[in-house]
Amino acid sequence: MPNYSSMHKEELQREFDALTQEYEGYKEQKLSLNMSRGKPATNQMDLTMPMLTCLDPDDMLFAGGMDARNYGALEGIPEARKLLADLMGLQPEEVLVCGSSSLNTMFDLVTHAYTHGVYGGSEPWMNCPHPKFLCPVPGYDRHFRITEYYHIDMIPIPMHEDGPDMELVEQYVNHDPFVKGIWCVPKYSNPQGITYSDEVVRRFAALKPAADDFRIFWDNAYLVHDLYEDDHDELLNIMDECRKLGSEDMVYEFFSTSKISFAGAGIAGVGASLPNIKFITKQFGVETIGWNKLNMLLHVRFFKDANGVYEHMKKHAKILRPKFETVLRILDENLTDLAEWTKPKGGYFIALITQNGCAKRTIDLCKSVGLTLTDAGAAFPYGHDLLDNTIRIAPTSVSVEELEEATEVLCLCTKIAVVEKLLAECEA
Amino acid sequence: MPNYSSMHKEELQREFDALTQEYEGYKEQKLSLNMSRGKPATNQMDLTMPMLTCLDPDDMLFAGGMDARNYGALEGIPEARKLLADLMGLQPEEVLVCGSSSLNTMFDLVTHAYTHGVYGGSEPWMNCPHPKFLCPVPGYDRHFRITEYYHIDMIPIPMHEDGPDMELVEQYVNHDPFVKGIWCVPKYSNPQGITYSDEVVRRFAALKPAADDFRIFWDNAYLVHDLYEDDHDELLNIMDECRKLGSEDMVYEFFSTSKISFAGAGIAGVGASLPNIKFITKQFGVETIGWNKLNMLLHVRFFKDANGVYEHMKKHAKILRPKFETVLRILDENLTDLAEWTKPKGGYFIALITQNGCAKRTIDLCKSVGLTLTDAGAAFPYGHDLLDNTIRIAPTSVSVEELEEATEVLCLCTKIAVVEKLLAECEA
Repeated sequence: MPNYSSMHKEELQREFDALTQEYEGYKEQKLSLNMSRGKPATNQMDLTMPMLTCLDPDDMLFAGGMDARNYGALEGIPEARKLLADLMGLQPEEVLVCGSSSLNTMFDLVTHAYTHGVYGGSEPWMNCPHPKFLCPVPGYDRHFRITEYYHIDMIPIPMHEDGPDMELVEQYVNHDPFVKGIWCVPKYSNPQGITYSDEVVRRFAALKPAADDFRIFWDNAYLVHDLYEDDHDELLNIMDECRKLGSEDMVYEFFSTSKISFAGAGIAGVGASLPNIKFITKQFGVETIGWNKLNMLLHVRFFKDANGVYEHMKKHAKILRPKFETVLRILDENLTDLAEWTKPKGGYFIALITQNGCAKRTIDLCKSVGLTLTDAGAAFPYGHDLLDNTIRIAPTSVSVEELEEATEVLCLCTKIAVVEKLLAECEA
Repeated sequence: MPNYSSMHKEELQREFDALTQEYEGYKEQKLSLNMSRGKPATNQMDLTMPMLTCLDPDDMLFAGGMDARNYGALEGIPEARKLLADLMGLQPEEVLVCGSSSLNTMFDLVTHAYTHGVYGGSEPWMNCPHPKFLCPVPGYDRHFRITEYYHIDMIPIPMHEDGPDMELVEQYVNHDPFVKGIWCVPKYSNPQGITYSDEVVRRFAALKPAADDFRIFWDNAYLVHDLYEDDHDELLNIMDECRKLGSEDMVYEFFSTSKISFAGAGIAGVGASLPNIKFITKQFGVETIGWNKLNMLLHVRFFKDANGVYEHMKKHAKILRPKFETVLRILDENLTDLAEWTKPKGGYFIALITQNGCAKRTIDLCKSVGLTLTDAGAAFPYGHDLLDNTIRIAPTSVSVEELEEATEVLCLCTKIAVVEKLLAECEA
């Protein structure tokens, strides 16, 4: 591995020329590679195909004797509430099963809070002169887009290896009544794959918000998305911790099967305290008569119980492990001392941290030879990666062969960006 | 048929005693009947069961080559856009296919308009000091609940035999900039089963709203729900009429297959002008990555095209015809000269118009002998039926045998309420 930082200008120039020559070679290949989308691969979705034929036409009733094909049961069918509750470590009555998109449920809850307020809150968020949300960064762009839509001021909170900077979180939440919420992906975070430590979860539960209408948006999107059976992260159950302190009304927990059954066609739900659930159910009752219960029935008949989901996810892991390992191996072979990256034990992403000021240039270089990556800055509120150093790698939907090539290209472009930067510094 | 209005007090008292005796007989039967819910019957939903097994596992791609089981295609799959467009008389690109609930799509669009405004509007509805909606009455309680949620002032507009009172509509819409919208069920309206005449549709298209952000919420829920093949209402295509006048940005048209395939598990969509669609798509892009496309694929593979839907609806009609005819026959036998009622050629409801001041009493009397009807006042904004004369009859989910009994009970209770009223007038 060349040590760029100790090279003088001529050596750097020679290295730059060599890298550029290699880059031109890729250009000629007219590649079409994409590591931008956190999508399941086709063979992951194939695993769920038996779901589509698992229903017995004579057995369309759900617990309580209602027909899943007809109106009713705004809260979702009891079997689906239990399935998601078991996975989240909640009671079934603490879970509402909604449509197919947990993002949509988050949007709905931000919207209702904005226009009408939350349980226990004194007024709608929109009546606050300057509502704010805390955004651990890097984070999920779709979260940020929701709060941006409502002109809620987004405050970036640095992520550490064990979760968000809790001192900063506590300072904001416990002292600023304009802080109305925080976006969290507590297990295998997007894009770093970080799982919040027990201490971080306990500190979340122990928050004493200055606002009476503060909510933690606990997006547990990757709760069951372990890559290794015997070596995976354990996330503390935040609701259990909250219950010890009486703070459980502060949490909205989200879950979906989009990356378990079918992306965008799974079932999604929200978990919360009983007073929250009662309050939310009333708000949802304005929106709809009920969500798609037939899809819920499909899911519970197919997975049967939480164990069915765990077994299913082992099959996903078998498909995804070699993909993550391929990317990590090639990064290791090429970028040691030139960049840093996370080594997640689950989830859907790896974060590559380049030298400051090199992320956008790297992504642009990749794009010019046919490798699409997530837009620079996407993991930050308003798209502003102030250090310009974060690249999100999404390996799941790409084949191992393509990943090898794509990661080689990514490493090459990262090197070029670094050398360019060092050369520019020589000029200055 | 006794002529109550010409009876003197003693005759009325005798009639009352006879009716009461009959009523007591029903009490002893401990009935459990329900004509309150506009739900499809089980055998209607059974017609769609083959949909669940119609997918070829090797054919999960939709037009353009994307996989219906994965993320993407926020606008819906092209095949589903075309299917709904063909039914609504629109172009596919004028239709977005959303989740399973058109009510939810209406809620979303009111919400986005309220918080962010509509295409061409100068500001969000919520910035208007006193936003108003016109509500043709009687109408659909779920519509009214949405506007009530946003504290939008609801102005009742009387329904005539050919649709809403257009003079009043024009007066409000064309002169009051605070009027932001109107709720319409233009074909087989809920609860009267009235279809707007060509002239009414043309007058809608010719509206010149004082507000630059006025929208007609054209809920075409019963567009294909004819009871008789050779004798059904024809609704003029409002978008065609608008196009002649350049007013097409004023309309949001809604449609769903809830009462075609499965209630709450069908596909729903919104039709609108291209500038509206572009604007709405951006707003929906904040809410979700995409709606359930697998359900869209199921629907297009099963129905194939608009003709498939028409053929399917003939089977529904065969089930529903005897139900409507049973109710109408028994009303005819019992309530001529005592009440009025609509005789819809499609849709899901019949409206019984009692003498003023008798609806709530009738509904309460029914309830006490085990017949549940839609709550009195439900068809009016804020639940206020000022004349207290409207009863919604929902015959679809009940068997013909039960409908006979239920309608007999309803007629009896209507008579009791009338006689009670006349007796009270004698006292006064």
